[in-house]
Amino acid sequence: MGSREELYEELISKSKQTALLSSCASVLGWDEQTYLPPGGAEHRGNQMALLSGLAHQQATNPRIGELLSELEALDLGEETDPIAVNVRDLRRNYDQSTKLPQELVEEMSRVTTMSQQAWIEARKEKDFSKFLPWLEKVVELKREEAQALGFPEDGIPYDALLDQYEPSATSKDVNAVFAPLRDALVEMVAAIADSPIEPDVSIITRTYPVDAQREFGTDAAQQIGFDFRNGRLDVAAHPFCSGFGPGDCRLTTRYDDHHFNGAFFGTLHEAGHGIYEQGLDRGHYGTPMGNSTSLGIHESQSRMWENFVGRSRSFWNHFFEPAKVAFPEALGNVDADTFYVAINDVRPSFIRVEADEVTYNLHIMLRFELEQPLMAGDLQPADLPAVWNETFTRYFGITPADDSEGCMQDIHWSAGLIGYFPTYALGNMYAAQFYNAATAELGDLDEMFARGEFAPLKQWLNKNIHQHGQRFRANQLVKEVTGEKLSPLPLIEHLKRKFGAIYNL
Amino acid sequence: MGSREELYEELISKSKQTALLSSCASVLGWDEQTYLPPGGAEHRGNQMALLSGLAHQQATNPRIGELLSELEALDLGEETDPIAVNVRDLRRNYDQSTKLPQELVEEMSRVTTMSQQAWIEARKEKDFSKFLPWLEKVVELKREEAQALGFPEDGIPYDALLDQYEPSATSKDVNAVFAPLRDALVEMVAAIADSPIEPDVSIITRTYPVDAQREFGTDAAQQIGFDFRNGRLDVAAHPFCSGFGPGDCRLTTRYDDHHFNGAFFGTLHEAGHGIYEQGLDRGHYGTPMGNSTSLGIHESQSRMWENFVGRSRSFWNHFFEPAKVAFPEALGNVDADTFYVAINDVRPSFIRVEADEVTYNLHIMLRFELEQPLMAGDLQPADLPAVWNETFTRYFGITPADDSEGCMQDIHWSAGLIGYFPTYALGNMYAAQFYNAATAELGDLDEMFARGEFAPLKQWLNKNIHQHGQRFRANQLVKEVTGEKLSPLPLIEHLKRKFGAIYNL
Repeated sequence: MGSREELYEELISKSKQTALLSSCASVLGWDEQTYLPPGGAEHRGNQMALLSGLAHQQATNPRIGELLSELEALDLGEETDPIAVNVRDLRRNYDQSTKLPQELVEEMSRVTTMSQQAWIEARKEKDFSKFLPWLEKVVELKREEAQALGFPEDGIPYDALLDQYEPSATSKDVNAVFAPLRDALVEMVAAIADSPIEPDVSIITRTYPVDAQREFGTDAAQQIGFDFRNGRLDVAAHPFCSGFGPGDCRLTTRYDDHHFNGAFFGTLHEAGHGIYEQGLDRGHYGTPMGNSTSLGIHESQSRMWENFVGRSRSFWNHFFEPAKVAFPEALGNVDADTFYVAINDVRPSFIRVEADEVTYNLHIMLRFELEQPLMAGDLQPADLPAVWNETFTRYFGITPADDSEGCMQDIHWSAGLIGYFPTYALGNMYAAQFYNAATAELGDLDEMFARGEFAPLKQWLNKNIHQHGQRFRANQLVKEVTGEKLSPLPLIEHLKRKFGAIYNL
Repeated sequence: MGSREELYEELISKSKQTALLSSCASVLGWDEQTYLPPGGAEHRGNQMALLSGLAHQQATNPRIGELLSELEALDLGEETDPIAVNVRDLRRNYDQSTKLPQELVEEMSRVTTMSQQAWIEARKEKDFSKFLPWLEKVVELKREEAQALGFPEDGIPYDALLDQYEPSATSKDVNAVFAPLRDALVEMVAAIADSPIEPDVSIITRTYPVDAQREFGTDAAQQIGFDFRNGRLDVAAHPFCSGFGPGDCRLTTRYDDHHFNGAFFGTLHEAGHGIYEQGLDRGHYGTPMGNSTSLGIHESQSRMWENFVGRSRSFWNHFFEPAKVAFPEALGNVDADTFYVAINDVRPSFIRVEADEVTYNLHIMLRFELEQPLMAGDLQPADLPAVWNETFTRYFGITPADDSEGCMQDIHWSAGLIGYFPTYALGNMYAAQFYNAATAELGDLDEMFARGEFAPLKQWLNKNIHQHGQRFRANQLVKEVTGEKLSPLPLIEHLKRKFGAIYNL
């Protein structure tokens, strides 16, 4: 038995090795979404399965269990000290990993690679039947996974999956904050529908040449603080951000030459994720202290830059003139106020990633409502299109014309990401809370944005959120930073204030 | 001890696993050359080192040695049967791998990743001193590697490295075919210099818009038989082809909007490699039977499509009209004969990959002449620029203005690829021999090219070369296919005939 330092060093070295191996899989995963030729899907599935299997082998090495037990018997200092944090969260990882059989991990990797390719084709062809056999396999494996991970006696299988993305959160907690948010949103959507104000959304669907969009979006991402020396922006069917490790963070977006919002706010969104990844402490790379703390917190960063910054009036004080230069045909005869209202148009629509700030959260609640019975076995994949459309109609008052704008719109289920969606709405709530705290400390952020100054907010986020890695769980972090626990109220207030002004409510 | 079938199956499963892991490293290697942001170099080095280390661990698993020994004691059938071939070449791989210490493999991987990044920057800045410290590390490691691998008593350290790329070839063999080729080339270059014919090379450096080049090159690659459903074409500083595995083969090229030859013939060249990779037997993937047999044979395929096909007069019977459509500004007032002569201009120049068919081989001999003493310790990296320039002047009669068009032009040394260059000239000789055999069997290939028919040659190559994998060593394969052993004469005859006609010799 070694000294505390020796034990800890051995543990950390194993943690770094596993992280490095997983980061290789991230590169292959990114390539799969950006550049993989269609014929390569099966081979890529085999590659990913091998890497997942090896990473799982390393993560479940019994020596890690021994090291953890020995360390846990020693004094590890304050519970927010790096040693204590890393031991706590490596224990969590180890316990989760050892609960999953190697075959399940490899099978999941192989199946999700193939099913993502099937999803791409099925979505293109609007043909759910092509996706269904793969979705069934994925759902079956996720149900097995939930059982293997386990969940509280008073919980549901879904809790096991949710906890992987939002550590310590339960469906009960989520329901508790979703309920008041849902009521407020439904009321707000109705009020907006009744408002005589009608944004001129035709502005947004004019011609925006793709090259100009790429250049304008890249410039904006750079201005808000994403570092392109240590990252890039590519095209993918479903936009995402993947931090491979120090110095290499990849963003993706997709362009439509007749829609401004998708690529531009998508780029800001992914850049927000990227700024979090780039703000992690490199010295702690490969350990929990150098890792983001939850997907909800991650999403708070992307939503912050996308909505609280990018969709604010003050942001366009700075960016509207360059936008007119970049898109003279579309914006030549438009003024900034009209544009601001157009990009903030609120109306029920089918595609989550293109939804406005208000209805967006309803899209999440819809998925949350379906995923829980799907995991409990009370809803079958074959029934998803019908149940989706029925629920969608109930929430939004409109019905998808096909499954590509219905239950096949998102990559998540094809990739086995079930339990992930709620973190998007949690992120919106955290973002509102953080934004208030930043304003309290830094003063009027809008004045800064109008001058093109984004560094103060970025540095505040670096200091208060990014650099901590997993030092705090999401629910602790929000208390540390804002003095309050997770609450839907700041988000509701933000939406009421902003859209009250726009729609004259 | 199991049956022959059980032993063989276990061996093959291990071979496939190692190949799969190495193919993951290929993806990361490709990304490194195409899309890696500069800040990510160090992390990528760590990732590559980890994967190389793991692959090396798998390849040196003592169980492989046991399986091989047990199998070797049994009747494995004809020596060209898949079982016998796989056992023979897995033995070769195992012996080579077990000779290399794990630390050397990991260190080589880490150092070459970093040194390639250093090379990119140094080459851009024409500053050899920025590359030198890395080159010194690489050379030191390659010297160690040569000693660890071992070489025949009457051989030199270089032989150990050459054998990795061209199994069973020695520097003595290579010298034996290079000597008559060198004499013939020097004579031909002199005769061409004295010829009154002066190709109008200004045609080649007119404006060729990059997008049009990409489209035209992609179309040509497709027409000669590269399958883009199972592959792609991207941009890299130093063009290469990387076959990741079944269904996924990546080509790269680089564009210069004022130079036609580089990207176009580079694309045909890499497509030739890709057609070989795509022609391998998928059923044998991950075993020697499903792998290319040597780099010389690989290069024979790329050179065949680049030069024997792409630089032939008949090829341009089919492609010149589309070229005029693609590049109206450059080629509007040019006729096919003038263009044909221009793309076949022969003159001493600095950059190997842009060299003509005749002088190209002299570029190879130059490197072959320097690499041998470099590995023996008789030449030091710091002295390379001076020795390069001196030797270059002796061979070509011109002197590089800086090291970026001198000893830093190629990626190979930065990537640890020493002993690799001779395979390019061997490939030219093999290509000439194969081309003669294909003509003997298929009839007049030129008539087919003029009609845009490339499938007969491709299928002949598929059948006679690609599908065999490593069934035959290069020197056996050339005998099987042509009835003759490796010889420089067919290449010399081809060059004399072709350039005799162009230059009226």
